[in-house]
Amino acid sequence: MKTYRKELWFNTKKRREFINITEQLEKAVKESGVKEGLLLCNAMHITASVFINDDEPGLHQDFEDWLEKLAPEKPYSQYRHNDTFEDNADAHLKRTIMGREVVIAITNGKLDLGPWEQVFYGEFDGMRNKRVLIKIIGE
Amino acid sequence: MKTYRKELWFNTKKRREFINITEQLEKAVKESGVKEGLLLCNAMHITASVFINDDEPGLHQDFEDWLEKLAPEKPYSQYRHNDTFEDNADAHLKRTIMGREVVIAITNGKLDLGPWEQVFYGEFDGMRNKRVLIKIIGE
Amino acid sequence: MKTYRKELWFNTKKRREFINITEQLEKAVKESGVKEGLLLCNAMHITASVFINDDEPGLHQDFEDWLEKLAPEKPYSQYRHNDTFEDNADAHLKRTIMGREVVIAITNGKLDLGPWEQVFYGEFDGMRNKRVLIKIIGE
Repeated sequence: MKTYRKELWFNTKKRREFINITEQLEKAVKESGVKEGLLLCNAMHITASVFINDDEPGLHQDFEDWLEKLAPEKPYSQYRHNDTFEDNADAHLKRTIMGREVVIAITNGKLDLGPWEQVFYGEFDGMRNKRVLIKIIGE
Repeated sequence: MKTYRKELWFNTKKRREFINITEQLEKAVKESGVKEGLLLCNAMHITASVFINDDEPGLHQDFEDWLEKLAPEKPYSQYRHNDTFEDNADAHLKRTIMGREVVIAITNGKLDLGPWEQVFYGEFDGMRNKRVLIKIIGE
Repeated sequence: MKTYRKELWFNTKKRREFINITEQLEKAVKESGVKEGLLLCNAMHITASVFINDDEPGLHQDFEDWLEKLAPEKPYSQYRHNDTFEDNADAHLKRTIMGREVVIAITNGKLDLGPWEQVFYGEFDGMRNKRVLIKIIGE
């Protein structure tokens, strides 16, 4: 059995951003030498997500609007977490909707994704260094 | 280490449907010959889900009503994704709530599920050919 | 390849509770002898979650308030699932938001978690015996 580990680092310009990381995951699969197995990719921070969806700007705007409706950023005072010198309670909730991690099959040395599946880093409390973990197991 | 891959195909009669796929997953585990390991089952489309819950029609109606409340199908014009000749933005959001994938332990050659756990394909933009990936690793 | 299986049992005093299980998972990793691999931890019941977030009481209150807003417990009659002598439809929905499972990398014999990542059992229909599955594969 082979295993492989890699971190990806991000420092977004805005509080919230979606970044397509599919190519970086494909690169990690090649580096691992794994032909058949599983890839885990997870946010290592609890105000960020890794998720799979469409690389379409209109849909990303819909996600932004929808998450703001389900878990609004402001007023900050609506959240008890923000009593502790934080202002990012909404980011913890938004990330919960979008998910912490994805697990992707590796087949014939490639990510085994459907035709429109693209992998994203979802940042909900950015403008600082944060990271994602890639772990691959297989052979 | 053994690995096994299989696709399940669906073409639902309605836009939204929940289909119990637990038996098909059990069959895949037998076909794989894996006694101890992990099974990944994920939608290969970004408007569908694989999730685990109860096989109870009342609850499935509750999911339908609840998802329509959280991410209504209509009016289509409320979503920017639908500006691109699509009408399925709501399906992308509904699938996000329900999840893309499940990972299930395999123990003694069987799915290691709790007493009421059943696995479902969740379709949110159906009436066309769509598929689910099963990937098994273990020994 | 090594595999390891363990169950954790819970019987909460309240209908809804969050319990930090990170140390119990670390213990399971040690018991497994796995140095590099993956750990799956999932609720075996469909009205409970395993999720990763912050161990901060204010945030846990925010989760409680937010989940009650998105999927209120009462009135019980609003849910068709509750027509079947149940009163826990809301727990099925809440657990769907919070997620059934987490997959965590194991690196150098330890859970490969980010600085604030803590693993929780999320109970949404408690006061009875329920359990969580830990499955580890690797070497």
